[in-house]
Amino acid sequence: VAKVPTECVIGVDLGGTNLKAGLVEGSLAVRARVERVIAGLGREELLDALADAVAQLRESAEVEVEAVGLGIAGLIDSDSGVVASSTHLPIAGVAIAEVLSERVGLAVLADNDANVALLAEVRDGAAAGEHVALIVALGTGVGGAIAFDGEIYRGAHGAAGEFGHIVISPDGPACGPGCRSRGCLEAFVGGSALARDACAAAERDPAGALGQALADGRVIDGPLVTELALGGDATALAVLTTLGQWLGIGLLSLANVFDPDVIVVGGGVSAAGDLILEPARRVLAERAPTLISKHVEVRPARFGARAGMLGAAILAREAAAMTPLRRRGKVAG
Amino acid sequence: VAKVPTECVIGVDLGGTNLKAGLVEGSLAVRARVERVIAGLGREELLDALADAVAQLRESAEVEVEAVGLGIAGLIDSDSGVVASSTHLPIAGVAIAEVLSERVGLAVLADNDANVALLAEVRDGAAAGEHVALIVALGTGVGGAIAFDGEIYRGAHGAAGEFGHIVISPDGPACGPGCRSRGCLEAFVGGSALARDACAAAERDPAGALGQALADGRVIDGPLVTELALGGDATALAVLTTLGQWLGIGLLSLANVFDPDVIVVGGGVSAAGDLILEPARRVLAERAPTLISKHVEVRPARFGARAGMLGAAILAREAAAMTPLRRRGKVAG
Repeated sequence: VAKVPTECVIGVDLGGTNLKAGLVEGSLAVRARVERVIAGLGREELLDALADAVAQLRESAEVEVEAVGLGIAGLIDSDSGVVASSTHLPIAGVAIAEVLSERVGLAVLADNDANVALLAEVRDGAAAGEHVALIVALGTGVGGAIAFDGEIYRGAHGAAGEFGHIVISPDGPACGPGCRSRGCLEAFVGGSALARDACAAAERDPAGALGQALADGRVIDGPLVTELALGGDATALAVLTTLGQWLGIGLLSLANVFDPDVIVVGGGVSAAGDLILEPARRVLAERAPTLISKHVEVRPARFGARAGMLGAAILAREAAAMTPLRRRGKVAG
Repeated sequence: VAKVPTECVIGVDLGGTNLKAGLVEGSLAVRARVERVIAGLGREELLDALADAVAQLRESAEVEVEAVGLGIAGLIDSDSGVVASSTHLPIAGVAIAEVLSERVGLAVLADNDANVALLAEVRDGAAAGEHVALIVALGTGVGGAIAFDGEIYRGAHGAAGEFGHIVISPDGPACGPGCRSRGCLEAFVGGSALARDACAAAERDPAGALGQALADGRVIDGPLVTELALGGDATALAVLTTLGQWLGIGLLSLANVFDPDVIVVGGGVSAAGDLILEPARRVLAERAPTLISKHVEVRPARFGARAGMLGAAILAREAAAMTPLRRRGKVAG
């Protein structure tokens, strides 16, 4: 039997809006990429898009591809491998790894997107070498993940790390679609919450840069608010400061629960950097028990938009290294 | 060298008000007990009381005592063994296990009281055999602990499981003494919060049983409120229902974070049983993701007031079984 080269795996980040796939080396260098918008696709179209992306990267590879890793915006039941829920993807009820594996004839490992993002950070990023590491992923929604000594903790049934749904204000705003609760962390610090709060602030301050952007018909989103805050607009800055304080309340609860070494903050909203991290750190410093606050570090993620793809590749590579992979889908855990 | 019998250890629960110590067999039967009020004692008096209790039990033992386990109402820095903070005990800054070990000439293992209470529940109580188990201990304050596959998780520096200080309402009431935050879970569901809310309810409803108890000069505390609620007083019942709903908000956050198999609810306030557990379960059922809510069980603790003493004994016994104990204090972890 010829030895199968293990240098290349395919990592796929299946978000609510985009599919990002890459042919990834052991060094985490990306040899080839495929990216496409998948918002609005139905279930079969989505599975076709996934299989096509894998096939395309496989053709471009000069070595054999051993496995595929998949990070998805959703919860996977670790008992059955079936996607239990996904806010933006029409794949609830699908044993996603198994189905994709059958289509592409490769072993497929699937996990929650925040789990794979943290895997990338603990292996080679902002949480490398830490015993207790958390990630809070501030995307449109808010995800989270937990790693103990470099191993992702997935909970009793695969649903752990849903930090976006820690309740920080029980009568607060309704959360994102698919959530039955309200006043969740996500309803205060996710991308949708940021856009909502920035629009309201723009209306209250029509003369400011944010207000003018609204009047000019620009889309009020995280990147714009960050740009204007960095440019000195007080209203935009206040919106981010408030978001950072709410983030701090969430991190405070997580710090009291886990006594972590590091909390990594990632996701698109985290591009605001210290504009949100500094207010969050202040809340921790002021409110947490000293034994916790003197140790815990809040760090920006190293891997930005590539975190999901790279983490998914690491997931596949480590599974391949540990055990000869059958051509069958698996859920990590 | 004569073989040291391992049948008996001493377990000590050092709470804010009482010291409870027992000579405990492997079956968890308690051969002898010492109990005394320690509220108001200074540091040296407290250490004397501890050493006296151990000496007294040791004299009563027919076999050699191998080790002492100690559960304390406070956080112990796992790096140094020093008590980092304790709301009600004057032992911050003391390497409590080491100091007691020197006094009594026995190995002493020390840990947080909620950690040892959960240890008792996972070994022989409401969480036996569960992979992911949490305890929320509703005493005067609110403690918590985490066990993965029967092992207590202590965090990076010994401070994990501070569930009482999850923020559930950022502008809520100030928390207990020693806490720099506000709106913590403890400020809504601890014994002090219950007494506060019950007094306020009694004032609003002077004709009710609770109001009459207040007028009669009775102490309005958890046991009284539970007694009156069980007797049919609507106001007392409403106070407990509200407390149960707040508890549910806290458990919801914990469920989203850990995806646990079981959450054990213990501590004095939990004597209200389903009067608080049912409202809490309803919040979980209504608000948690289905993958979590269909699995997680909320159970009353098996061990009530004895949980700390028995858990401390288990801590000592297991350490003794694992490794020959030197006569030196150790922090579990």
